[in-house]
Amino acid sequence: MSAPRSSPPPSRSSYENAPTHSVSVDGVDFVYRQLGPQDGVPLILLIHLAGTLDDWDPRVVDGLAARRRVITFGNRGVGGSGGSTPDTIDAMAHDAVRFIRALGFDQVDLFGLSMGGFIAQVIAEEEPHLVRRVILAGTGPAGGHGIDKVPALAIRATIKGTLTRQDPKLSLFFTDTASGRRAGHALLQRLEERTDNRDRDISLPSFRAQLKAVKRWGRRAPSDLSAVRQPVLVANGENDRMVPSQNTVDLAARLPKSELVPLYPDAGHGGIFQYHEDFVARALGFLES
Amino acid sequence: MSAPRSSPPPSRSSYENAPTHSVSVDGVDFVYRQLGPQDGVPLILLIHLAGTLDDWDPRVVDGLAARRRVITFGNRGVGGSGGSTPDTIDAMAHDAVRFIRALGFDQVDLFGLSMGGFIAQVIAEEEPHLVRRVILAGTGPAGGHGIDKVPALAIRATIKGTLTRQDPKLSLFFTDTASGRRAGHALLQRLEERTDNRDRDISLPSFRAQLKAVKRWGRRAPSDLSAVRQPVLVANGENDRMVPSQNTVDLAARLPKSELVPLYPDAGHGGIFQYHEDFVARALGFLES
Repeated sequence: MSAPRSSPPPSRSSYENAPTHSVSVDGVDFVYRQLGPQDGVPLILLIHLAGTLDDWDPRVVDGLAARRRVITFGNRGVGGSGGSTPDTIDAMAHDAVRFIRALGFDQVDLFGLSMGGFIAQVIAEEEPHLVRRVILAGTGPAGGHGIDKVPALAIRATIKGTLTRQDPKLSLFFTDTASGRRAGHALLQRLEERTDNRDRDISLPSFRAQLKAVKRWGRRAPSDLSAVRQPVLVANGENDRMVPSQNTVDLAARLPKSELVPLYPDAGHGGIFQYHEDFVARALGFLES
Repeated sequence: MSAPRSSPPPSRSSYENAPTHSVSVDGVDFVYRQLGPQDGVPLILLIHLAGTLDDWDPRVVDGLAARRRVITFGNRGVGGSGGSTPDTIDAMAHDAVRFIRALGFDQVDLFGLSMGGFIAQVIAEEEPHLVRRVILAGTGPAGGHGIDKVPALAIRATIKGTLTRQDPKLSLFFTDTASGRRAGHALLQRLEERTDNRDRDISLPSFRAQLKAVKRWGRRAPSDLSAVRQPVLVANGENDRMVPSQNTVDLAARLPKSELVPLYPDAGHGGIFQYHEDFVARALGFLES
């Protein structure tokens, strides 16, 4: 376990202005941001497919950071993080564990969104002493229904988004209803609030490696979720067309210590962003219970 | 040959404000715009892959319309044009011929850009009496070097464009140099000048059909270009990474009556837009010679 190259104090500013730090993990620099109080078990956020530091809804990060030390980081080879992106979820999980230990933490909570939720499941199972509690949103178990179709869906939405001059997140994360579209545009605006020192965009090779990892996760034999001993909070929109919502219900049913947030109405993969106030309140309650 | 549903007088306004008309072609409505003088042989513009009425550089259309009757139209199933998009260049050429005859024309000039240039070659060969002169830009012959790779390249650029929040046209149509990037952004701005009554974006199924047609064209046995008897003006940037520029040189060498515009320096697939003043002058000169 290497010591962090720099040990900045957790910032009490908002995510919009949180400085980006980096820590060397076995010779590779991982970028991260932290904010919130300095005490307590840190909450490590694991981002979705193609996501960078700037894909976290600032309302969710700030909401959680009001009471928890929150840390976001860039996966290996993504945005400002060095190295080349692995093409398996297991390798991403091992990276995350090394990153957490490089920051000097012996116990953390995890919050994984979509692909980040796949990673969180692996870490929780493999590192029962490192992980205290887990929040899983818009995600599913290995071999879960429809997950192997996520790459094709993401590519299709990306191309369609270009042809229609629309951010593909709108169709992938939100329902095609008046309130879904409104919530989608509101999120896109929030994601642009930070104007200085934004993370770099993901490269095409890194995106491809992640697509491969997601497909493999979707084609894996169903994992034995009873091996995850930690308490887990599971959340999603009721109509997730990326990682179908039944995976969320399935996770809640198969995880030994689970709590299911009632699926958010008229919401999809980005349900926790659409209902960020409710989600933050429930997440904080779960972490503090 | 059906009569046009409406026969609007050619508009003398700019392309920015040119009204969009439609004409029924065997029961399917094709959208089109026309401007410029009412006399003389009309110049029919054939747009590129995924292109709609609003993908024509208004400087090029207005420049040509200063002295020629210019007509742009939407391919079958693209933008506001009805029907479903065919997946062969030959079928697109037959559509274009029916569209031209539906407008009542017995003789036209053709200006095909990229995929539109494939279509123009087929029409010129199959309809020697209908076509008087041809302008081919950023295009190549059937079976031309690298053309079968255009679909993969277009998809890759589209995905990369989304990840980097950049219009894929910048990387596909322009060189990655200071002047290339400047020219690219300038074109994107010009393409947004029209704000009212814009064409609809191409749908994903129509885009896919076109990708298939382009791939097939690229894999066809080289055609006998000596069958094209009309005078042809050939133009491109010197560094076209979509339809490699050597195809332009090849066209000029193999077409019996060709004239090659010296390849535009530090320019790619969108070279005729980057050098629109020079191109318009040469095109008008060629059409009037």
